[in-house]
Amino acid sequence: MSDVANPSSSSTSLHATTTLGIVGGGTVGGGIVSILTSNAPLFTTMTGKDLLITRLAVRDTSKSRDFITPEGCKVTDDFNDVINDPSVDTIVEVMGGTTLAKDCVFRALKNGKNVVTANKALIAAYLPEIESLVKSVNEDRNEGTKPVEFRYEAAVCGGIPIISSMQGDYVGDEVEMISGIINGCTNYMLTSMDRDGLSYDESLQGASDLGYAEADPTLDVGGFDARSKLKILMRLAFGVDVPEDEISCKGITDLTKEDFEYASMLGGTIKLLGVAKKLSSTEVAAFVSPAYVANDDVLASISGATNAVEVLSSNLQATTYSGQGAGRYPTANSCVNDIIKVCRGDVNPLPFNSKQEGVEFVNDFKSKFYIRLRYRDQNGITADCGRLCEEHEIGIYSILQNPIKNRNDAAFVITTDSVNLSKVKKFVAEVEGKSWCRGEAFFMPLLRDEAM
Amino acid sequence: MSDVANPSSSSTSLHATTTLGIVGGGTVGGGIVSILTSNAPLFTTMTGKDLLITRLAVRDTSKSRDFITPEGCKVTDDFNDVINDPSVDTIVEVMGGTTLAKDCVFRALKNGKNVVTANKALIAAYLPEIESLVKSVNEDRNEGTKPVEFRYEAAVCGGIPIISSMQGDYVGDEVEMISGIINGCTNYMLTSMDRDGLSYDESLQGASDLGYAEADPTLDVGGFDARSKLKILMRLAFGVDVPEDEISCKGITDLTKEDFEYASMLGGTIKLLGVAKKLSSTEVAAFVSPAYVANDDVLASISGATNAVEVLSSNLQATTYSGQGAGRYPTANSCVNDIIKVCRGDVNPLPFNSKQEGVEFVNDFKSKFYIRLRYRDQNGITADCGRLCEEHEIGIYSILQNPIKNRNDAAFVITTDSVNLSKVKKFVAEVEGKSWCRGEAFFMPLLRDEAM
Repeated sequence: MSDVANPSSSSTSLHATTTLGIVGGGTVGGGIVSILTSNAPLFTTMTGKDLLITRLAVRDTSKSRDFITPEGCKVTDDFNDVINDPSVDTIVEVMGGTTLAKDCVFRALKNGKNVVTANKALIAAYLPEIESLVKSVNEDRNEGTKPVEFRYEAAVCGGIPIISSMQGDYVGDEVEMISGIINGCTNYMLTSMDRDGLSYDESLQGASDLGYAEADPTLDVGGFDARSKLKILMRLAFGVDVPEDEISCKGITDLTKEDFEYASMLGGTIKLLGVAKKLSSTEVAAFVSPAYVANDDVLASISGATNAVEVLSSNLQATTYSGQGAGRYPTANSCVNDIIKVCRGDVNPLPFNSKQEGVEFVNDFKSKFYIRLRYRDQNGITADCGRLCEEHEIGIYSILQNPIKNRNDAAFVITTDSVNLSKVKKFVAEVEGKSWCRGEAFFMPLLRDEAM
Repeated sequence: MSDVANPSSSSTSLHATTTLGIVGGGTVGGGIVSILTSNAPLFTTMTGKDLLITRLAVRDTSKSRDFITPEGCKVTDDFNDVINDPSVDTIVEVMGGTTLAKDCVFRALKNGKNVVTANKALIAAYLPEIESLVKSVNEDRNEGTKPVEFRYEAAVCGGIPIISSMQGDYVGDEVEMISGIINGCTNYMLTSMDRDGLSYDESLQGASDLGYAEADPTLDVGGFDARSKLKILMRLAFGVDVPEDEISCKGITDLTKEDFEYASMLGGTIKLLGVAKKLSSTEVAAFVSPAYVANDDVLASISGATNAVEVLSSNLQATTYSGQGAGRYPTANSCVNDIIKVCRGDVNPLPFNSKQEGVEFVNDFKSKFYIRLRYRDQNGITADCGRLCEEHEIGIYSILQNPIKNRNDAAFVITTDSVNLSKVKKFVAEVEGKSWCRGEAFFMPLLRDEAM
């Protein structure tokens, strides 16, 4: 196998060569090595070049690996050996994190290397800086020199080609809205809570057992992983660079079985969505939140750990991409697609559609809402709610109330007409002060009718 | 607007130029002109070149058009004026058909022009010939000359980037199966038959009124349009070139309201699918047919005129692309994406993943089946069916029978275990010979369990 991976090391190949250095020897790195080695002749046909993996940086060189290091590939525990090797054309950064990885990627680019990465955290934190760096590196290069390329398909939704699609399929189009199921762990959990009636804890255990949860599951269930991805997609779709912590983020921790019962009564289910929408030619809003999704919506049918992104645009209208959001081979496959494009010399697409320049983020949005209130039964609750809704200019669309099991801890749900999130928050804050109200109210947007 | 489209005609641009000749001034051609003219500065930024539309060929130059001809663009009724103009770099063929369009595309390529086309019929009929022509034209070109590019994103599923995805996202992967809702007219009809309980005739009328039907709706309802697209997708996924009429093709004309009732009893609905599956390293099977799809399958949620293609592959597992299959702007948008890639100099991807070379088409496939039999009530029907199933080695999975309304014309449904289509056909032929059997039996695959 290693002969195939590094053909020139054992044969007299007539092809030009391109040399890769991989930084990170874990799950994704191993997947990339496997795909590249087992397809070497095909890739030579595709690119006109032999692809040689000549450098691999890993944390611990003594650790045994579940893949075969290509023949002739030098293994090191210092990524500087890789990015400073003048014979290496392209660096593949798959170690993760934002400290060492940042150093590695920035210095590799400055050294004139192409970079392919799968690092979501790095891209979420530094994409605009990386874009500027690539631009300045290329401006400083001699006329006629091939520009440095930077690609990161695997950083968002692993196996779904959403980055290249956002970069290449909307060049003359205008993105209006993005709605995505962009965290596999929580979608697995919500699916098992809805279909199998599992509790929150049972479903989280199931997701952990299957390896869907991050090392710190708060990143998943709190919506933060989804928010990182949404931030990147917003950069591509709208050109905005929004600090992550400005995007309204609500995880799935407060969802109950009751919410699924009510969603079912409404004819739908609940999904954790990242949504960004252009409100005007200058404003874009966004949120990560559980949301009610009607059963006939394509996002309702995305089950288990699958990811999906729906893009609404002026020319293409609704387009949805669904697939594996994570995992060794889906992620490695996306890195390999990037590597081949870099080797073929495809031109680095614009970072984003500059038609959207000048768009700014606003921290509020309009939607129909689902509001669940817990209460101890007493007189005047409906009157209180009605009066508060009127005061806050919230139109009540429906009130849902299952048969009460416990008069001291019951719940009912209000669904609203389209209203700003900020108004819902104020309404909820006041309701929570009422003597009959127990604990905190839970609210989420109802898609799609007039969402935002 | 025309000043923007052809900037150099009225200003002293410092950019290089690239010149386009468009052949076809209808719906799609007009959409392309609109998108190109309204985004001219953006495209110059993206490609480093001013894009000039200098030639437009239309059938009737005197006809008024719903778009503005760019300033400086010469309009002709002879496409030869376009493809023989030495100053034109790229030809955009959007006239449709396979006679004049074939001439136009082949001669343009021979003249060393890049070609972008939206012509499904042409690609279905001549893709391998075009691939060979592009190859030989490029081999004959001088060393260092930019190769001729040929792109056809809009030819299959209008606005869905399925062609570039098949060419770029599976380079190190192996496609195992493709299942698609690839005809918008019939999907619109099936959706309205299922959800709104419309009859076949009512739903066809609705589709025609909305412009979803081809001039000859037989191409839609007979499954032939879907088959053309499936043939193209099979070329991309498996490298095979199957004569269209060898692919088993059943349209939606024999579906009845009863079938939707039975599908609903089974927990699903009916979709017209094009399916191709690799059976072994050397064999691929395919069909176009209505098929039962379970409600929790993402394809069941694709409603109206929307298209969707699901690709199963070794690395990416299941990936689904859904969006607009037709229409002015979705189709024109795909052509524009191709034009920009050609102008940027992206390298023409391989026609297909050559890992799949040596794969051959086999004209049979295995699936669970749904078989509906009409009958006049008499003794011995169940016994007859049971005996015939046994003889033909067909395992009965379930028998569905709604309350009989008319003893002289009733129907029941058998669902089978996984079995070859050829066996089902023989079984059906024998059943139809029984005295109790009325008319022809209807059968279709049940997806997904063990389909094929």
